[in-house]
Amino acid sequence: EPVALRNEARVLVINTGGTIGMTLNDEVLIPQANAFVQNLRKLPLFHDEKYAQETCLFEYYGYKSLVLPLSKSKSRIVYTFLEYNPLLDSSNMTTDDWAKIGKDIEENYENYDGFVILHGTDTMAYTASALSFMCENLGKPIIITGSQVPIYEMRNDGIDNLLGALLIAGQFVIPEVCLYFYNKLYRGNRSTKVDNGSFNAFASPNLTPLATAEVDITINWDTVWRANTTERFKVSPKLNRNVGLLRLFPGITSATVRAFLQSPMEGVVLETYGSGNAPDNRPDLLNELKEATNSGVIIMNCTQCLRGTVLKDAGLIAGHDMTPEAALSKLSYVLAQEDLNLDEKKMMMAQNLRGEMSADLAGA
Amino acid sequence: EPVALRNEARVLVINTGGTIGMTLNDEVLIPQANAFVQNLRKLPLFHDEKYAQETCLFEYYGYKSLVLPLSKSKSRIVYTFLEYNPLLDSSNMTTDDWAKIGKDIEENYENYDGFVILHGTDTMAYTASALSFMCENLGKPIIITGSQVPIYEMRNDGIDNLLGALLIAGQFVIPEVCLYFYNKLYRGNRSTKVDNGSFNAFASPNLTPLATAEVDITINWDTVWRANTTERFKVSPKLNRNVGLLRLFPGITSATVRAFLQSPMEGVVLETYGSGNAPDNRPDLLNELKEATNSGVIIMNCTQCLRGTVLKDAGLIAGHDMTPEAALSKLSYVLAQEDLNLDEKKMMMAQNLRGEMSADLAGA
Amino acid sequence: EPVALRNEARVLVINTGGTIGMTLNDEVLIPQANAFVQNLRKLPLFHDEKYAQETCLFEYYGYKSLVLPLSKSKSRIVYTFLEYNPLLDSSNMTTDDWAKIGKDIEENYENYDGFVILHGTDTMAYTASALSFMCENLGKPIIITGSQVPIYEMRNDGIDNLLGALLIAGQFVIPEVCLYFYNKLYRGNRSTKVDNGSFNAFASPNLTPLATAEVDITINWDTVWRANTTERFKVSPKLNRNVGLLRLFPGITSATVRAFLQSPMEGVVLETYGSGNAPDNRPDLLNELKEATNSGVIIMNCTQCLRGTVLKDAGLIAGHDMTPEAALSKLSYVLAQEDLNLDEKKMMMAQNLRGEMSADLAGA
Amino acid sequence: EPVALRNEARVLVINTGGTIGMTLNDEVLIPQANAFVQNLRKLPLFHDEKYAQETCLFEYYGYKSLVLPLSKSKSRIVYTFLEYNPLLDSSNMTTDDWAKIGKDIEENYENYDGFVILHGTDTMAYTASALSFMCENLGKPIIITGSQVPIYEMRNDGIDNLLGALLIAGQFVIPEVCLYFYNKLYRGNRSTKVDNGSFNAFASPNLTPLATAEVDITINWDTVWRANTTERFKVSPKLNRNVGLLRLFPGITSATVRAFLQSPMEGVVLETYGSGNAPDNRPDLLNELKEATNSGVIIMNCTQCLRGTVLKDAGLIAGHDMTPEAALSKLSYVLAQEDLNLDEKKMMMAQNLRGEMSADLAGA
Repeated sequence: EPVALRNEARVLVINTGGTIGMTLNDEVLIPQANAFVQNLRKLPLFHDEKYAQETCLFEYYGYKSLVLPLSKSKSRIVYTFLEYNPLLDSSNMTTDDWAKIGKDIEENYENYDGFVILHGTDTMAYTASALSFMCENLGKPIIITGSQVPIYEMRNDGIDNLLGALLIAGQFVIPEVCLYFYNKLYRGNRSTKVDNGSFNAFASPNLTPLATAEVDITINWDTVWRANTTERFKVSPKLNRNVGLLRLFPGITSATVRAFLQSPMEGVVLETYGSGNAPDNRPDLLNELKEATNSGVIIMNCTQCLRGTVLKDAGLIAGHDMTPEAALSKLSYVLAQEDLNLDEKKMMMAQNLRGEMSADLAGA
Repeated sequence: EPVALRNEARVLVINTGGTIGMTLNDEVLIPQANAFVQNLRKLPLFHDEKYAQETCLFEYYGYKSLVLPLSKSKSRIVYTFLEYNPLLDSSNMTTDDWAKIGKDIEENYENYDGFVILHGTDTMAYTASALSFMCENLGKPIIITGSQVPIYEMRNDGIDNLLGALLIAGQFVIPEVCLYFYNKLYRGNRSTKVDNGSFNAFASPNLTPLATAEVDITINWDTVWRANTTERFKVSPKLNRNVGLLRLFPGITSATVRAFLQSPMEGVVLETYGSGNAPDNRPDLLNELKEATNSGVIIMNCTQCLRGTVLKDAGLIAGHDMTPEAALSKLSYVLAQEDLNLDEKKMMMAQNLRGEMSADLAGA
Repeated sequence: EPVALRNEARVLVINTGGTIGMTLNDEVLIPQANAFVQNLRKLPLFHDEKYAQETCLFEYYGYKSLVLPLSKSKSRIVYTFLEYNPLLDSSNMTTDDWAKIGKDIEENYENYDGFVILHGTDTMAYTASALSFMCENLGKPIIITGSQVPIYEMRNDGIDNLLGALLIAGQFVIPEVCLYFYNKLYRGNRSTKVDNGSFNAFASPNLTPLATAEVDITINWDTVWRANTTERFKVSPKLNRNVGLLRLFPGITSATVRAFLQSPMEGVVLETYGSGNAPDNRPDLLNELKEATNSGVIIMNCTQCLRGTVLKDAGLIAGHDMTPEAALSKLSYVLAQEDLNLDEKKMMMAQNLRGEMSADLAGA
Repeated sequence: EPVALRNEARVLVINTGGTIGMTLNDEVLIPQANAFVQNLRKLPLFHDEKYAQETCLFEYYGYKSLVLPLSKSKSRIVYTFLEYNPLLDSSNMTTDDWAKIGKDIEENYENYDGFVILHGTDTMAYTASALSFMCENLGKPIIITGSQVPIYEMRNDGIDNLLGALLIAGQFVIPEVCLYFYNKLYRGNRSTKVDNGSFNAFASPNLTPLATAEVDITINWDTVWRANTTERFKVSPKLNRNVGLLRLFPGITSATVRAFLQSPMEGVVLETYGSGNAPDNRPDLLNELKEATNSGVIIMNCTQCLRGTVLKDAGLIAGHDMTPEAALSKLSYVLAQEDLNLDEKKMMMAQNLRGEMSADLAGA
């Protein structure tokens, strides 16, 4: 039977590093090149060697390819590993690494039905947010996952996380950058890490999960974001790093605010109180904010709603219910759009680009 | 019957302002001087006028005093209002206001069995944290509360919050600065605001509540913090405002870090990744941190545990599971201790002063 | 201004008894005739005496009427008490009492916009279920509520529960029998009592609440059940008491089953295992069930789905995700339909009459 | 190295049947003899063949033995399968099957450090409750588990459940009959099935879990029940089947109660309202209960506390916060004690035998 006629879905697995693929070496957990795909090949849960032989899988797809056992829906998921060298600790992830991931997806976009990115948990929500903005006109699932305990350990969450991510990426056309963890699929730019000691490490505080995978996989199609576009997929790899997050607190000095807003800072997420409030008896503070916006710094008021008018007067933009991770990476992405002027960038920041904020809040 | 023989507890209510006491004026919610105590006097839930007349309450305690109806335990709670003029929007609260609240508690400390502070919700967790550090050798309950909906509205959470705070402050010797909201009593420096639209607006992510007040009031005495001291209560009103919170994110530039750490900054809460991690492939960043600590800036690594040694080498102190609110106000308090040198301040930051971090993590 | 032109909604409050209205007498909680309405009249939260005087409220509506203060939406809710004599302990509630409540609603149906029923918590879910079936072609809200702590006590849940029920009954056209408790409105025949020590005493395990009333009252209109009918409202007061609930357990003897199913039993809710399973290696048991259904007993298999065919062969009807309270009262109601034959009754039991089971499960 | 010197723990796995070990045959899930152990042998997660060969494992322990890979604590868990023939659907489980399981544990008690019982989920909580009473003077862990999805399927909860149960049974001396599901270890006689569609299928409503197994396995040693005994372990296999559960509801007829309580019924769990209440205006009902207890039927009032005295007068015993599963199997066990008279049996029912009810409620 020719390949084209087989009921096979193809998934590209980009292994950037992280706990999921680590192995133990002299009592210390270390990442080890190429070990991951070789280990998976030995696990019948992750690879059907008989099918691979019968179909000459490696000839068609390369020796770093594996094939899942037949799924309940009688389809096959063939997945191919692309492993980074060296493997990356997620604490060390940079905007250059995001650009590299984006480029790799772009280059392989036409050849695969979905993408799974293995990643450490520490900055996973940042990477998911950044990729959601960098990937324009996305039409296929990109699912980022990892684990709290390495897959080589007996009791681990890596098996479930990787299997679930592969099955969803290969079987459902969810055109979003997602994060999959502990049987739940979240929108990437809505997720945040909440627990270091539990398998249930991520949450999506302001949006219900896109899917749950327990006895059955249930997709909440109403929640899935669909870009209203017919344009071609492309990745925008440029990111502006002159951004930062500033948290208001009682007693904050104008010196602190001024220092933080000084050049070369171009975009700031301002974490205000409760529902978007800031002091209105502190002309020194408001003045610093106003001067900064006047000189072209974009400041997002990152809360659920913008009740007061004080901060609008100072030129701030409402961030609604965006997470700090999403707001920071959106700023990075928007500020890097070289063909836009400042006002256009500000308008873009106020728009719901990838489902990163609640649409019904937009007019609030 | 002479006053001294009556089974009466005395509570001082310091009304700093906030939603709980607002009234509607031309469709706008405004704070209104003296209106609160006058309105409460009309509510039988909050004042037993018959008892007040029989016992000449106002002669003894002043006309801004009220008395709750007889409680289930047959005790009386007499409470007296001290109202700030003008009333404060909690977004406008400053370190000077904290000092004022502290001073008012200190002056009235011997005359009351407990204290209730009415406060807006936006910065309530900051004020609770700050007071917990400022109040040294505390032996009586200080309970901060407020509401999401003004007490004058029909459906409101102010009645339950104020009643619960009064009953606990008057009946239980919990020697802590606490925050009471929606039937739960939290340790003040463990609490944080989590929701703007729900009555259940606060949470204490790393510590179970000190008490729950549903059908019965149940105190979790095992959790209550007791200062190991016989010294006299006093309030330390000085706070250092040259502090700030800096959130790490992938791609953060050394320029941002340097700008934030520059003079006059003296103390910084560094929000690191996951479980206290930071990039170890960014010598530029680590250098900035090291230079700052070398020049005397105290930097707290504010996460649950300090696994890596990288940040220790840069001179950072583990903040364990402190909330950002607690870490910032602890820095403010410790940096203001004029008779301590830098090393002593650093040691103080690493200690568990008021139950603000988990004791069992201390040695981690 | 004539009554007809005023923006007033009318609610009938039927006080059947229960903890909410109890008062303390010699250390013992007792129900006390007429005390409730008199006490409410003194509370400004519950009665606006000035408005009552100006509008001659008592002349129009009778002296057992009260009027809430002006609501946020500028409407007035006038409510009139109908108090049972004697007041009923909810443990003593009988089917005759349900009929009486139903009759009282029917007689007053045209004169009021909504109905609130005060009731003890012990059998509240049963009464709510029974009324939901007895009320045919309902077009107005009937909200049953009560409290865990009497309204006369300082800290109580009665004030919030009664105010919330009145405001929803007077302001929203939710044509259902509902249960309101601790800021949530549940469908009556989906609710069940889950906790004796908490204010959060009820739950609706298989259906999200119809409304939440926190900072704002939010109705989930998608969930509200609407009878597809233009017929006139009427109450069907007859209920068949020869019903019961039988719980399967390993080792249950056929003697137990036979004894329970014997005449005069006419309808049985069979609580089967997990997802509707029962032993298929127990011909003695299946024989008892079969004989009972052959002789006209209606047996509901009360679980979420009917996977096996064994029990269908024995003549059982799928109860899907009905609560036991709903299933028992539905049997009582259906078996009392004198103009239906056995097959029609069985068909009625299998239908979703009042939203008591999930529609999408109906065909499972 | 001789076997006696190796750091090996031995676990006996009794496979009674259930979903966990099912395989697909012509689109239908069926249990298949001996397939389970053969399949596990191929999975490196569950069997270290190299170690088995080196240590001649099969010679020592038999060919149905497997050995887990080296655990983090450097210990080995060798486990041996005892498979029932035929495998049992848990809906078909009987008291005879419980006796058989008990006998098998008793016969193998000295040879193993712990026991894992594979079981279908439908009656798992009943079996766990029954075994907890049948096993007297237990000093080793007996952990019952299973799964919602068969272990042969790609995404399944069987791997995690079996691995977790083996690791706890082999590494921790928890002398209880436990139930392990979805990373939580519950006391067997406190657990109940709550969900058919979720991996999180069991709960323990009135007791916190004995252990959680996420990133680490954490035992709550304070909660673990320890029999205060030095007597020899033995299993009491006799169970009295003349027991049943009767649920009170408004309108229940005395005919129903009489029919249910008639001979040969010897023990009844009476599910009363809310907190142990029953009608006191129904002399017909109370009379039936009294007559039954007078004639020697033991009736448990199965709720959290026994506030009223009415039911005590009728001879009922307080069941406190026992689950129905625990109450029914405790009755079965106690009624089968042939050397006890009726009063002694009643006293035994009122005692906390295996942690099945909250000790602090005992005197309520």
